[in-house]
Amino acid sequence: MEIKVLESVLRVNEELAKSNKNFFKKKDIFAINIMSSPGAGKTSLVVESLKRIKEEIKSAVIVGDYTGKIDAERIGKLEIPTLQLETASCHLDANMLSQALKNMDLENINLLFIENVGNLICPAEYKLGVNKNIVILSTPEGSDKPFKYPLMFSISDVLIINKIDLIQSVDFNIEKVKSTVLKLNPKIKIFTMSCKTSEGIDNWTNWIKSELKM
Amino acid sequence: MEIKVLESVLRVNEELAKSNKNFFKKKDIFAINIMSSPGAGKTSLVVESLKRIKEEIKSAVIVGDYTGKIDAERIGKLEIPTLQLETASCHLDANMLSQALKNMDLENINLLFIENVGNLICPAEYKLGVNKNIVILSTPEGSDKPFKYPLMFSISDVLIINKIDLIQSVDFNIEKVKSTVLKLNPKIKIFTMSCKTSEGIDNWTNWIKSELKM
Repeated sequence: MEIKVLESVLRVNEELAKSNKNFFKKKDIFAINIMSSPGAGKTSLVVESLKRIKEEIKSAVIVGDYTGKIDAERIGKLEIPTLQLETASCHLDANMLSQALKNMDLENINLLFIENVGNLICPAEYKLGVNKNIVILSTPEGSDKPFKYPLMFSISDVLIINKIDLIQSVDFNIEKVKSTVLKLNPKIKIFTMSCKTSEGIDNWTNWIKSELKM
Repeated sequence: MEIKVLESVLRVNEELAKSNKNFFKKKDIFAINIMSSPGAGKTSLVVESLKRIKEEIKSAVIVGDYTGKIDAERIGKLEIPTLQLETASCHLDANMLSQALKNMDLENINLLFIENVGNLICPAEYKLGVNKNIVILSTPEGSDKPFKYPLMFSISDVLIINKIDLIQSVDFNIEKVKSTVLKLNPKIKIFTMSCKTSEGIDNWTNWIKSELKM
């Protein structure tokens, strides 16, 4: 009985995701959904990306958090339009995103970062209607995460392996992670980086520019 | 409407949690529910604790994972009775635990570790009926987590700050975290440790023994 409720919720969500997708197409907005465990570096990725591209690409950010607005305050310092969504739930869904889109001025915006709630499970189940889904895995989390959360790594278009500056201090095997993820999802694009030292971030922002045909 | 469904699910869960609590009391089992983000060190905590106490305390383990049995295999090497629960959901609930308890031989067992699914949100909402709730926060996750997941830090009896061996390489302020958590939850007990270097683990296992009146 509980599963039936969930199925119907997911069906309604799928319809709303399609409507968000049409919205992005009509407005010519490239929307990126960023997912990860808590503390893997979603906000750092948004901040470091914006520092590099905000002069070239008109950008905006929607931040989903269970509660509070710490992340939006960090991003707001860059003077980028930012909306904080308090989800009171373990994921963003297409309806929450749709409400957020109605409450932002997105005229002339070409790039929208959507920071999902820190969780490797439910955000993978709720489509948002974005152009690209991104999952961040940070090295201290360990190499076994793709085995344990296969849906997340299967539905993502991009895997970012973050915190490579810590790789000498933690038990993380990049090659093993890459081969596991590529078996689950042969088309996934993989970037390795450190948002702290800046290593590898330019490859990622260059990819965004190429997706925007710049 | 969706919220009403959730409320009724949580009410049923609460009843089943009470029944689990009675089961533990009757069997004289001290049950510990361990929660954290993915990769914070739940399995490492169980493994390192058992290495130190398994000769003195008859122990068993229930491991909840979204999918797979990697963690149970790590624990199983210690020759401790271990049951893996594949939740296909982002949390354990009292019903899953009750089913697991029916499928284990718990005669003469005095200590049960329950490793929840890696997630800082939903596991805090679903009571299991255990004696103690434990949350692990690892230093690479950052100092802001208690602000972002206040329910988890409010309902836990113990906070374990893990991976203190990495503290020089990450942005983590132990005193700030302690004071934030103690404001949310003045009765919480806090241990700092590294499951990798073993620093601080004995304080935690001594606490378990004192709870078991040993």
